[in-house]
Amino acid sequence: MNTFGKKLTLTTFGESHGKALGCILDGVPAGLKIDEDFIQAELDRRKPGKSKLETGRKEDDKFEILSGTFEGMSTGTPIAMIIFNTNQKSKDYDNVKDLFRPGHADFTYFHKYGLRDYRGGGRSSARETAARVAGGAIAKLILKELGISIQAGLCEVDGIKGDIQDFKYAKSSKMYALDPNKEAEQEQAIMRAKDNHDSVGGVVLTTATGVPIGLGEPLYYKLDAILAEAMMGINAVKAVEIGDGIASTHLKGSQNNDEMTLDGFKSNHAGGILGGISNGDTIIVKTHFKPTPSIFQEQDTVTTHDEEVKCNLKGRHDPCVALRGTVVCEAMMALALADMSLLNIGKKMEHLTSIYKG
Amino acid sequence: MNTFGKKLTLTTFGESHGKALGCILDGVPAGLKIDEDFIQAELDRRKPGKSKLETGRKEDDKFEILSGTFEGMSTGTPIAMIIFNTNQKSKDYDNVKDLFRPGHADFTYFHKYGLRDYRGGGRSSARETAARVAGGAIAKLILKELGISIQAGLCEVDGIKGDIQDFKYAKSSKMYALDPNKEAEQEQAIMRAKDNHDSVGGVVLTTATGVPIGLGEPLYYKLDAILAEAMMGINAVKAVEIGDGIASTHLKGSQNNDEMTLDGFKSNHAGGILGGISNGDTIIVKTHFKPTPSIFQEQDTVTTHDEEVKCNLKGRHDPCVALRGTVVCEAMMALALADMSLLNIGKKMEHLTSIYKG
Amino acid sequence: MNTFGKKLTLTTFGESHGKALGCILDGVPAGLKIDEDFIQAELDRRKPGKSKLETGRKEDDKFEILSGTFEGMSTGTPIAMIIFNTNQKSKDYDNVKDLFRPGHADFTYFHKYGLRDYRGGGRSSARETAARVAGGAIAKLILKELGISIQAGLCEVDGIKGDIQDFKYAKSSKMYALDPNKEAEQEQAIMRAKDNHDSVGGVVLTTATGVPIGLGEPLYYKLDAILAEAMMGINAVKAVEIGDGIASTHLKGSQNNDEMTLDGFKSNHAGGILGGISNGDTIIVKTHFKPTPSIFQEQDTVTTHDEEVKCNLKGRHDPCVALRGTVVCEAMMALALADMSLLNIGKKMEHLTSIYKG
Amino acid sequence: MNTFGKKLTLTTFGESHGKALGCILDGVPAGLKIDEDFIQAELDRRKPGKSKLETGRKEDDKFEILSGTFEGMSTGTPIAMIIFNTNQKSKDYDNVKDLFRPGHADFTYFHKYGLRDYRGGGRSSARETAARVAGGAIAKLILKELGISIQAGLCEVDGIKGDIQDFKYAKSSKMYALDPNKEAEQEQAIMRAKDNHDSVGGVVLTTATGVPIGLGEPLYYKLDAILAEAMMGINAVKAVEIGDGIASTHLKGSQNNDEMTLDGFKSNHAGGILGGISNGDTIIVKTHFKPTPSIFQEQDTVTTHDEEVKCNLKGRHDPCVALRGTVVCEAMMALALADMSLLNIGKKMEHLTSIYKG
Repeated sequence: MNTFGKKLTLTTFGESHGKALGCILDGVPAGLKIDEDFIQAELDRRKPGKSKLETGRKEDDKFEILSGTFEGMSTGTPIAMIIFNTNQKSKDYDNVKDLFRPGHADFTYFHKYGLRDYRGGGRSSARETAARVAGGAIAKLILKELGISIQAGLCEVDGIKGDIQDFKYAKSSKMYALDPNKEAEQEQAIMRAKDNHDSVGGVVLTTATGVPIGLGEPLYYKLDAILAEAMMGINAVKAVEIGDGIASTHLKGSQNNDEMTLDGFKSNHAGGILGGISNGDTIIVKTHFKPTPSIFQEQDTVTTHDEEVKCNLKGRHDPCVALRGTVVCEAMMALALADMSLLNIGKKMEHLTSIYKG
Repeated sequence: MNTFGKKLTLTTFGESHGKALGCILDGVPAGLKIDEDFIQAELDRRKPGKSKLETGRKEDDKFEILSGTFEGMSTGTPIAMIIFNTNQKSKDYDNVKDLFRPGHADFTYFHKYGLRDYRGGGRSSARETAARVAGGAIAKLILKELGISIQAGLCEVDGIKGDIQDFKYAKSSKMYALDPNKEAEQEQAIMRAKDNHDSVGGVVLTTATGVPIGLGEPLYYKLDAILAEAMMGINAVKAVEIGDGIASTHLKGSQNNDEMTLDGFKSNHAGGILGGISNGDTIIVKTHFKPTPSIFQEQDTVTTHDEEVKCNLKGRHDPCVALRGTVVCEAMMALALADMSLLNIGKKMEHLTSIYKG
Repeated sequence: MNTFGKKLTLTTFGESHGKALGCILDGVPAGLKIDEDFIQAELDRRKPGKSKLETGRKEDDKFEILSGTFEGMSTGTPIAMIIFNTNQKSKDYDNVKDLFRPGHADFTYFHKYGLRDYRGGGRSSARETAARVAGGAIAKLILKELGISIQAGLCEVDGIKGDIQDFKYAKSSKMYALDPNKEAEQEQAIMRAKDNHDSVGGVVLTTATGVPIGLGEPLYYKLDAILAEAMMGINAVKAVEIGDGIASTHLKGSQNNDEMTLDGFKSNHAGGILGGISNGDTIIVKTHFKPTPSIFQEQDTVTTHDEEVKCNLKGRHDPCVALRGTVVCEAMMALALADMSLLNIGKKMEHLTSIYKG
Repeated sequence: MNTFGKKLTLTTFGESHGKALGCILDGVPAGLKIDEDFIQAELDRRKPGKSKLETGRKEDDKFEILSGTFEGMSTGTPIAMIIFNTNQKSKDYDNVKDLFRPGHADFTYFHKYGLRDYRGGGRSSARETAARVAGGAIAKLILKELGISIQAGLCEVDGIKGDIQDFKYAKSSKMYALDPNKEAEQEQAIMRAKDNHDSVGGVVLTTATGVPIGLGEPLYYKLDAILAEAMMGINAVKAVEIGDGIASTHLKGSQNNDEMTLDGFKSNHAGGILGGISNGDTIIVKTHFKPTPSIFQEQDTVTTHDEEVKCNLKGRHDPCVALRGTVVCEAMMALALADMSLLNIGKKMEHLTSIYKG
């Protein structure tokens, strides 16, 4: 239930204000060089406080590998990674201890489990995504060996769509923006919401290139279905599109089909997936994030003791969670594709005979 | 890989033009009355040829239970169901035997597996969804005992949106339409495409009412994530939204949060799910289907022998797969919710003590 | 819960006196020649009534493949196989309908599920093992391509141990006996028990040769652990030994360790497994079957209505289930090894790079 | 692959001489009081160096909970536990770095993964069982609430069988001996082996009382099959028996069947399991441990570079691993039974209706 993947499995643990959070990544093939600097760099991309567009919380997010590597290489045993929580201001949450913050999981956790760790959202905090990013970083190292690369960026904020998809630019943009021409306008929308003690939504575009034909396990572990699960499972996500997604439904079949020549597909409406299996073209996924539920306006809510009260939040929060969500989308795509790469081996008898019979 | 669910598991088998298709539904609690008429009625709702809006193929879809029931009740053992294929016109596919139909899974299956059953799409045929509907029907019988009901209908065709959501009407509509006022216009769009040897897309709205608080297993078996997986895994689906979905991303946090009073939530932008767990409100999912890839216009493609050819399809196909997809969306929602209902038991110690200690 | 394996998965269904029993074997690599005659021959080896040492029940056990093959080859999609029940004498069970046969699962099924299909033991009947044998036959076809072969035979009956392990002889022996010199004595023990309306136990030795180094997934899917699970899960099995098994515990470490030279291991006390991983030597497993619980002597028991009664069984039963259990042991060993062969691919990075990067 | 269980899942990580070892226990119901002193006490029972019968290695085995509890109670989220390695003498292993110790997993790990962490056996070290004991301790806390208790003890050493099964005595015995009258003789056998730089085998008896009828999921997650898997997966185990085990195979059916009266079963040859499901009687499992492979006599072996060499081990090792294995057997039994207790809920429709409909 806290595990993602089938052959490359990420199992995460940890609460926002507990001692530590982390993960066990199992199934990493032996003999992979584990570049710890890269993993830390990925975590740094996700960590908050890098600009005024993000929550002011300081989370060092220094990670440590506890197992599964030897002399810098993966050994085939489970890789455990840990991040100790250091900047816990649990007091910030004393005033929400007994009430359910609107738009948050407080209400459902409390009723499902009968009790909850209210500090910072506990397990439902987006802080857990640090563990995904750590796991995703190793998945990226696997994919790199296979020639697959993943990139993501923000393509829309508060309804303001970018027209350009410049993933290189997004890497340097403090808001992960894909369109340099729209970045200022998008930034203003975020700052305006922040000034109004409010928040905005956003959309992340994630793509993968160099993907071989054949990833995805029909019929109930299809690549598109698992990408949908992976992305929808990220905090605050409310919609996922593959390829042209919703726009496809407004086309005729004759417009939407990707015809083929010996040079490849003439178009990529499908987003690189046919019948749940990668077709060798670029994988395209759009992930839609709702506005951050943590806002600083008074809201109606109820308490664990069935009283109606006003909710007034304190603390520090991202005005647009889609920004840092970009890094998490990349991680989930990486985990899904690395898992699929492993699952696909053995689908033809010749895979077995080549490995066992030489 | 051909199994959906964790505690209630549906494993399906079968190709479009093989001997039979079917499923094993495992994990059905013992002591459930198995209403075979209801299961057949659900299959009849999905089967093609009921109107000129659907493919003219005749598939009887008479199902048979092979195991797991005794004297009309489930026994707790696996329920196998089978549907023999009777109306196989494999000859229709002789001309596509060596080529990859655009928009279809032919290309990816061939390359993933090295060979394929080309008759009617083989395993990738939407015909497999009959097995989902049979399994989903039993899931509905479980849910009914818990007071949960599921309904779906077509809310959009070829960009023509309905304004009303009349699920009762949809039940009687030959095109599963939710809005009686838009039905004629939507029908015309389909017929126009059909006359043009083309196809159109559509959108299905699926809801569940009576859902208790607490269904969904964070963090990697969240209810919304699994619904996304369930729906995206249906043939031709390219996007899934939960609750307000994409519209949420255009709202401010102060607009999108569902505030609470002692009477319940003041709105349901979230679609009944918070933190991946049901909150007791109506579950709302939108599923977007691309236009049917099988069209009767000449298209460019290549063959298994790397030649460029023209693809000219024969046979009979739905001009809009979203219509019958409605029944499949209901089935997948039912399977997901029944599985979640079973998984949720045991999340509190008091569940165990009440059952084992009386 | 009715599924064995992780990457090659066998899911079985069916009751002793239901319409049919069968299985879905998922994960068979594409491009395997499916030799249906071989599968039928394996089923024939298991089917009862071949000699007076076995139950006189006639079960034709004619199997049919419903899916997953095309033009004689596996396609990579689920292979469903079905065996219709034809020789059902449900009347034989009318007198045990309300009582719990000693040594049988009647009591536990009834209390676990609240109701049960009492005809012939329902799901708990050894008849289900036909599905295992069908699945195991395909697993053997996979293993054959990898140079792995499996053989089993009866090494002990009613405490009478064989001294010789002649697997070739066992193939032709009507009682699967490994030691031709002890066969007559072992046969007499069975016939004596049968004449006394009683039954005897027996032990099956199963081995696999040609197994590559590296099969088995530590730490919780070890090869020996999974073989123990596979064998212990067969009806009537009460003990499993790997290699020298219990005899090992009477040796000193200096006697039990298998020393190594460049020619290989100097002994094979370990039974071909070290640390849960195959070491390239012969895999050796001993499976101990209790005496058949169905005997024709009067026994004390109780009813579903909490009355004390005498149990007097009718019908036809094997006086020693270990005999036909031999074929089932082979099947389970085959399924486990084929699954492990698939799971092991991808444990080294070079597996991935060789397949994806050529 | 490093996870045990289906609904209560233990995923472990860590190598003998890495930074830390630990586990994530997922699926613990919310609202369980987590008695940390009890968990530490269980770890202390397992830790080495308590007597001269055990390895002289000092491992503090101080554990820490990182997540999943709040104010002393389980919250339903994953419980991560960690034990830092403090007494690592990696130098002890420099001389075995390039060779394969006989009877150890060195050879198979090296060939399966292409490289290995040779320090102390790395992942294959019995040190990992500390994580099992920590997880098992929490499983015991769950079981205690259900009235189930587990006990184990040593019933045989070096072929010297005990006649008495005094679990209370075993708790205080430094060698976990069940028979006080045989303890001295058994101890001498161990010390004699130790003095000879050799080792001996032993047998652990594990039982569970208070087990409700109905635990175990036929047909491929049977209670006996999973106990066999659980025990066979412990380092050095070579055989597992359920109930009378091998002795059953020497009885006639009329002797071995457990007849029933209204007072319960008249005997317990079956070891509390029928058809893979608990029957309410005491669960009985015997686990056979081979002699410790680490001995201090010169042995023949080969190196990673294909040279024949003599193996001369240094360091400190248990002369009989079965002793401390006792605690691990208890832990595995506890994990299996707690998982089965959770899995069994929902097998009857009335479980669902009672929880959801009150």
